[in-house]
Amino acid sequence: MLLRMSSLFLRTLREDPADAEVPSHKLLVRAGYVRRAAAGIYSWLPLGKIALENVTRAVREEMDAIGAQEVLFPALLPREPYELTGRWTEYGDLLLRLKDRRGGDYLLGPTHEEMFTLMVKGEYSSYKDFPVILYQIQTKYRDEARPRSGILRGREFVMKDSYSFDLDDAGLQKSYDLHREAYIKIFDRLGFDYRIVSATSGAMGGSHSEEFLAPAPTGEDTFVSCAQCQYAANVEAVQTRLPQVEAAGEHPPVEVLDTPDTPTIEALVEFLGQPASAMLKNLLVKVTEGGVTSVVVVGVPADRDVDMDKLEAVLAPATVEIFEAEDFAARPDLVRGYVGPHALPGDVSYLADPRVAQGTAWVTGAGQVDKHARNVVAGRDFTVDRYVDVATMLPGDPCPRCGGPLSLQRGIEIGHIFQLGRKYTDAFQLDALGPDGKPGRVTMGSYGIGVSRIVAALAEQAHDDKGLIWPREVAPADVHIVATGKDNQIQVALDLAQRIEARGVRVLCDDRAGVSPGVKFTDAELIGVPTILIVGKGLAQGVVELRDRGSGQREDLPLEEAVDRVTGLVGRPS
Amino acid sequence: MLLRMSSLFLRTLREDPADAEVPSHKLLVRAGYVRRAAAGIYSWLPLGKIALENVTRAVREEMDAIGAQEVLFPALLPREPYELTGRWTEYGDLLLRLKDRRGGDYLLGPTHEEMFTLMVKGEYSSYKDFPVILYQIQTKYRDEARPRSGILRGREFVMKDSYSFDLDDAGLQKSYDLHREAYIKIFDRLGFDYRIVSATSGAMGGSHSEEFLAPAPTGEDTFVSCAQCQYAANVEAVQTRLPQVEAAGEHPPVEVLDTPDTPTIEALVEFLGQPASAMLKNLLVKVTEGGVTSVVVVGVPADRDVDMDKLEAVLAPATVEIFEAEDFAARPDLVRGYVGPHALPGDVSYLADPRVAQGTAWVTGAGQVDKHARNVVAGRDFTVDRYVDVATMLPGDPCPRCGGPLSLQRGIEIGHIFQLGRKYTDAFQLDALGPDGKPGRVTMGSYGIGVSRIVAALAEQAHDDKGLIWPREVAPADVHIVATGKDNQIQVALDLAQRIEARGVRVLCDDRAGVSPGVKFTDAELIGVPTILIVGKGLAQGVVELRDRGSGQREDLPLEEAVDRVTGLVGRPS
Repeated sequence: MLLRMSSLFLRTLREDPADAEVPSHKLLVRAGYVRRAAAGIYSWLPLGKIALENVTRAVREEMDAIGAQEVLFPALLPREPYELTGRWTEYGDLLLRLKDRRGGDYLLGPTHEEMFTLMVKGEYSSYKDFPVILYQIQTKYRDEARPRSGILRGREFVMKDSYSFDLDDAGLQKSYDLHREAYIKIFDRLGFDYRIVSATSGAMGGSHSEEFLAPAPTGEDTFVSCAQCQYAANVEAVQTRLPQVEAAGEHPPVEVLDTPDTPTIEALVEFLGQPASAMLKNLLVKVTEGGVTSVVVVGVPADRDVDMDKLEAVLAPATVEIFEAEDFAARPDLVRGYVGPHALPGDVSYLADPRVAQGTAWVTGAGQVDKHARNVVAGRDFTVDRYVDVATMLPGDPCPRCGGPLSLQRGIEIGHIFQLGRKYTDAFQLDALGPDGKPGRVTMGSYGIGVSRIVAALAEQAHDDKGLIWPREVAPADVHIVATGKDNQIQVALDLAQRIEARGVRVLCDDRAGVSPGVKFTDAELIGVPTILIVGKGLAQGVVELRDRGSGQREDLPLEEAVDRVTGLVGRPS
Repeated sequence: MLLRMSSLFLRTLREDPADAEVPSHKLLVRAGYVRRAAAGIYSWLPLGKIALENVTRAVREEMDAIGAQEVLFPALLPREPYELTGRWTEYGDLLLRLKDRRGGDYLLGPTHEEMFTLMVKGEYSSYKDFPVILYQIQTKYRDEARPRSGILRGREFVMKDSYSFDLDDAGLQKSYDLHREAYIKIFDRLGFDYRIVSATSGAMGGSHSEEFLAPAPTGEDTFVSCAQCQYAANVEAVQTRLPQVEAAGEHPPVEVLDTPDTPTIEALVEFLGQPASAMLKNLLVKVTEGGVTSVVVVGVPADRDVDMDKLEAVLAPATVEIFEAEDFAARPDLVRGYVGPHALPGDVSYLADPRVAQGTAWVTGAGQVDKHARNVVAGRDFTVDRYVDVATMLPGDPCPRCGGPLSLQRGIEIGHIFQLGRKYTDAFQLDALGPDGKPGRVTMGSYGIGVSRIVAALAEQAHDDKGLIWPREVAPADVHIVATGKDNQIQVALDLAQRIEARGVRVLCDDRAGVSPGVKFTDAELIGVPTILIVGKGLAQGVVELRDRGSGQREDLPLEEAVDRVTGLVGRPS
């Protein structure tokens, strides 16, 4: 492959796009890889298409290597199968729905469990047919509420989704392990820094669901890891180790304090000079179940927040809404910023983090404006109706496995492997007749890789202030040849490009006439091909310059050695 | 590539699917290439995915070879650009429209002229940037009124669409010619029998739009060709040569005949014993323009029909509807089956084919039940309000170029190349600044290949009553090895498969145990891999059998020669 900048459909930009918040979005637009078509919907320009194809190839090869078979489903899907599993409704606004000319209901597939299960049911029926792993690399749709972050979280995106079908749990575990190994190979090939974290709660870190996260400050997921025992999990999956309840001695009685203008924890911390960990943060929510809405207060130590996702999961199937200003207005007996568990109206129940253990004393609101109370003791001054594990985590929290201190990091989900079990095979009654002629319910795994997201996730990890720095497997070319001079440099560069390309190396050659060396260098750094070869002033002395985009290392070398050196760096068979 | 039938996700069917009308649909389903997901929406099973990928590769390589650059647009597109060109409305029910969670209007792209024009406008602005050819291979959507014919005309399908952008007409012609050559290479590689036909009317067969049609009885297009001068055109594009008006002598006066029970041309032909070509077929339609509907009669020689597409094109922007039973009921002065141009009510106008020339005499309805009239002369007994070229063509009609006899055939549109001109660049004001600093409007071509349709079109052309017969470029494998016996045949077949595969040949090996030779042969013929190698009873004598799926030729050969022979047949480099 030899791309010439003089004809490549590419315009780099010097300014960040106005709507871009994260580095990958800024750089992929500026370097001419993608363009916005609508909110959360992107077009891929030639360089971007090549990078996307490089990721696709790596994913496909490793999936084929574990015996997975490639199929292709439509994106436009009928309602019925999704109605049967309840997902037509459960997906809510995330699902893009439409009607055809006859009024039939369709959706744009967000994921294809239903279709794969139906397909296997249509073809297979005997124990002899299993196991089977099927996959596709295909366009998916999710109507994100706030599509942002460019292609990191788009509304139309490319995914590899695969599904395993096994006769029993041992088979499922084997299919799961095959995927786990394949994913490790894929993400290693792609040059990722990644972690495999448990996505299932359980103190022992049950392996029936794991996520592959690429650490990045812009990641939407947070995960914990333990340096002591290698435990790693998405915070959503961590089961907090119940702290030892200190059977503390006597506490003084409740004392009400004047704390003018302290409706926030920050204000209170400053006013009292005490740490937030000694205070209670009391979050009010409306919980609706069976058509009845009640007010619930959730208390956590004030150096933490309530994780709304965890709270929703704990209270499901009830729905949870934040108590808004108008709700406070309707309940003058609940004073915003000064709520305390010992001063709650009788119809309000109190949930609390396990750290709010019996016998512990807290600073908390006193139920009146500008008043707080201290020495408010759980079990003595208020009752916890239910303990719930919904507090956000802090660095240093104890590892649920070994008790060692956990560290917290943000990451981008690039892969997810999941032992689904029989949810979908039950819904569609997918059975395999055993050797004894009796039907057995098939068990399933589902496994996803965000193919288009990977391009952005790599960009998040691999860039500097000058631009992108691609791992070679994903880079749109192996070497970027820059011809700078005015004389015969362009012709020499093109000759070199052809000779290097003849060795099986992918070359991008900046053969533009009338473009300054400065612009060409800036573009090369922005585009991020890992090896840069400069044909410039040194040519008069028969010298070209080799630069490593990542390390910045530079080296002059004789023109006649350039082909061998570049080919050797790339390590491709000629 | 080595596929083993023992684990391949494949079940062949012995019965045609109930909803299948055309051979490709029947065979692609029966041989396990595709499965129906919804009306006009299909999933590709592993063998089908391979065939689809083979077509994709050929298309991509030839597009790259003419310097076209691959990009990828979303399928989910915002309304605005399509609103601007009017296509949001013009597409009517063919367009799948939807709303996102915020109520924004979107469509599923049927073709991407708007998006490509906007993309080029976003990146390019100078004459130095042009020409440029961009393409994508991508999923498209059309909500067909009657999705049938399987993947020959689906509602979700894969297309290669490319667009050229040039500074002037000469440039456009060059881009067009490049595409024409690339398409010839693609369809030759894919093993098609195809014709390039003019899709633009004009006696000289203007080349600004041509279609690539694959002749097949099930094709939805009809094209004419002239053996004398090589003229070929879609019937929709043929401009009929006006027949020489015979300034015939005197005709006898109109004579009314009793023709009991002859409301159809067939009945009249039988009753009178005269050819249909001597009679007029008078089609009644309702023409609506500016909110006003009027009744129009269209007369053609009765051995032809009125081509409704041509009639609609001629009368556009008016809309045309067939005169139905209830319309006749409302107009007792128009007698169904007995309408005649000389006996029309005053508010009904008469359009006619040019063959109904002044001075020609016809048998036609007499305006009364069970009565016809003969010697009804155009210009003497009735007036033609307007001559229109809307009659269907007949074999032997004169070639518009040389006058020679035309033949008619049906074909499947597999490609279309089109000099669009400035329709879209005008809509989006896509200009290039010239060397003089003055803007010039860019001119465009659009070029399509139905990638998924090609798989079905090949199946239409290449099959027999036993199954598919793939051209090698598209076949899911080069050789299908069938192990028939009970002893060591399966092991020998697998050894052979591995050795052949090691030479770069794509192998499908039927290594299923407990499946009868008859079932395996039937499957091999159904699946349609071009070369079949049978490891069976002859193995005891060290002999295997080579079969050509197309010709049916069989040949015994020594086992040790099999690898070389198969490799030689396939012609792939080892």
